[in-house]
Amino acid sequence: MSLDVTATKPHERLAKALSAEMDAVNVMIRDRMSSEHAPRIPEVTAHLIEAGGKRLRPMLTLAAAKLCGYEGPYHVHLATTVEFIHTATLLHDDVVDESEQRRGRPTANLLWDNQSSVLVGDYLFSRSFQIMVETGSIRVLGILADASATIAEGEVLQLTAARDLSTSEDTYLKVIRGKTAALFSAATQVGGVIAGVDEKIENALYAYGDALGIAFQMVDDLLDYGGTEAIGKNIGDDFRERKLSLPLIKAVAKSDAEEMAFWTRAIAKGKQQDEDLQTALDIMRKHGALDAVRDEALAWVEKAKSHLSDLPEHEIRDMLSDLADYVVARIS
Amino acid sequence: MSLDVTATKPHERLAKALSAEMDAVNVMIRDRMSSEHAPRIPEVTAHLIEAGGKRLRPMLTLAAAKLCGYEGPYHVHLATTVEFIHTATLLHDDVVDESEQRRGRPTANLLWDNQSSVLVGDYLFSRSFQIMVETGSIRVLGILADASATIAEGEVLQLTAARDLSTSEDTYLKVIRGKTAALFSAATQVGGVIAGVDEKIENALYAYGDALGIAFQMVDDLLDYGGTEAIGKNIGDDFRERKLSLPLIKAVAKSDAEEMAFWTRAIAKGKQQDEDLQTALDIMRKHGALDAVRDEALAWVEKAKSHLSDLPEHEIRDMLSDLADYVVARIS
Repeated sequence: MSLDVTATKPHERLAKALSAEMDAVNVMIRDRMSSEHAPRIPEVTAHLIEAGGKRLRPMLTLAAAKLCGYEGPYHVHLATTVEFIHTATLLHDDVVDESEQRRGRPTANLLWDNQSSVLVGDYLFSRSFQIMVETGSIRVLGILADASATIAEGEVLQLTAARDLSTSEDTYLKVIRGKTAALFSAATQVGGVIAGVDEKIENALYAYGDALGIAFQMVDDLLDYGGTEAIGKNIGDDFRERKLSLPLIKAVAKSDAEEMAFWTRAIAKGKQQDEDLQTALDIMRKHGALDAVRDEALAWVEKAKSHLSDLPEHEIRDMLSDLADYVVARIS
Repeated sequence: MSLDVTATKPHERLAKALSAEMDAVNVMIRDRMSSEHAPRIPEVTAHLIEAGGKRLRPMLTLAAAKLCGYEGPYHVHLATTVEFIHTATLLHDDVVDESEQRRGRPTANLLWDNQSSVLVGDYLFSRSFQIMVETGSIRVLGILADASATIAEGEVLQLTAARDLSTSEDTYLKVIRGKTAALFSAATQVGGVIAGVDEKIENALYAYGDALGIAFQMVDDLLDYGGTEAIGKNIGDDFRERKLSLPLIKAVAKSDAEEMAFWTRAIAKGKQQDEDLQTALDIMRKHGALDAVRDEALAWVEKAKSHLSDLPEHEIRDMLSDLADYVVARIS
């Protein structure tokens, strides 16, 4: 790695290497989010899509297609599809979580209403399947339909596991594999499938995306408790929503009777007081729960990188490796 | 038509003629609504699916396939798909409308929560695409993805047109063509497509479903004001939700200044009083709005039936003709 390469962040370098393709994706996103009859649809979609997300998921599709030597036009369709599915799930998540902020801006359900968020999400989801149909690939449709079902299943599982202190790490893994990793792994996999790669490469792409998505969500869940260091801003959402995320599960597993009484009151019964988040953090630190989550996220990053060795040598492959490191670098 | 044939309702006769296929659809519905990880999903789905809807839409798919001589297995998949898409839209509609009753039972959003309704709807929608993929037909996927987008678009249009007294009959037609007719027409069309019919028959199937769906929704909207006769039970939902349905649009178009002041208060501003529904009905009757809606529904029924002449002669074809008549018979 040369010095000028390390000067920018991995996802920025990826964005630069894929800038022509990303431009085409952005054109297609704007084109396909329109609606002849219902102007509310592009309004709501634009609010979210133009809020400046990193476009990580469509970039994974473009990266996979490029490093597998794809030269056709359909990686742009698939990347658009992936971003639409992601946007649809964000719209529905904000309704489910009753969120008020996303990417530093008021959520669509707050600016318009829950109705618009539900229905525009449905529209984008349908649109994504329309775009997939244009690729003519039943295999790609199958992979992304499976991913969509797994996402919804993970979200429902998270909903029913909320407030339940007996939630296991195994259940947590199922939840995040659904709600986050399923779209990462489908994004990388379809990039290879459209390029016609063999099974070994397809499996490696899937496994990289899966491990990357799991690491990504573990880090997100850690950051919701301020990471391993000082308390940052805007933390504690998961605590207030009484989600059984990994830091909480690991702390609960080591808690004594007094600490369990605290979790029962604050999480199971939801009777929260102002100082509870600090108490929760104290218990987590005491049992090393936050460090344990970071270690686990790091292990998934290593797993992600290990699968890259099955892929063709390519500058994009190196960037995907750096991207995996960067996902965990957010916490230190 | 012989006497013993007229003794049962057309949709019951259709159900009888298609009973083996409908049994297979019910088995597939139960099989595919399951979830390995999230038991909440089949609970919510079963609540709605086993509430005893008439299964009209999947029956249309089976009927179309049978009258076109289809002998493969995939009409069952497509009928299941159509019912899943319908169920997903019902779950989301109840959240959007904040409904408390559906098919005479409490809605899922009331029994569980809005979150479950949104996410289980998403799951069923994804599941429906997974089942379509099994048919291996990209054409069928395209038709149902288009229909799904049109449904969501119609719902958003209805949302933005609510409370707006300047809503035109043209906009109303777009709304119901989306929210209702799109799935009827796709249901009949894919039954033919899977049977490999020629374009003329495919178009006739589409046009029959389209006109039937429009008539069906017009009748529903009329029944929400008690039909053309005496006031029934449970009417006035659309009025309370301030939806610009056809009876209201037709009454507004003929209203004088005093009546417009009433509509402005009750619909545009939403300041409703107990006696307002009766006043609304009085104004509608005065201007013949309810009769005019019935006449229009009847015209769409005739249109639906006219397209049947392009289809092969078959006892199922006669049942589809009777079914169209029955849709309007509900109001008199």
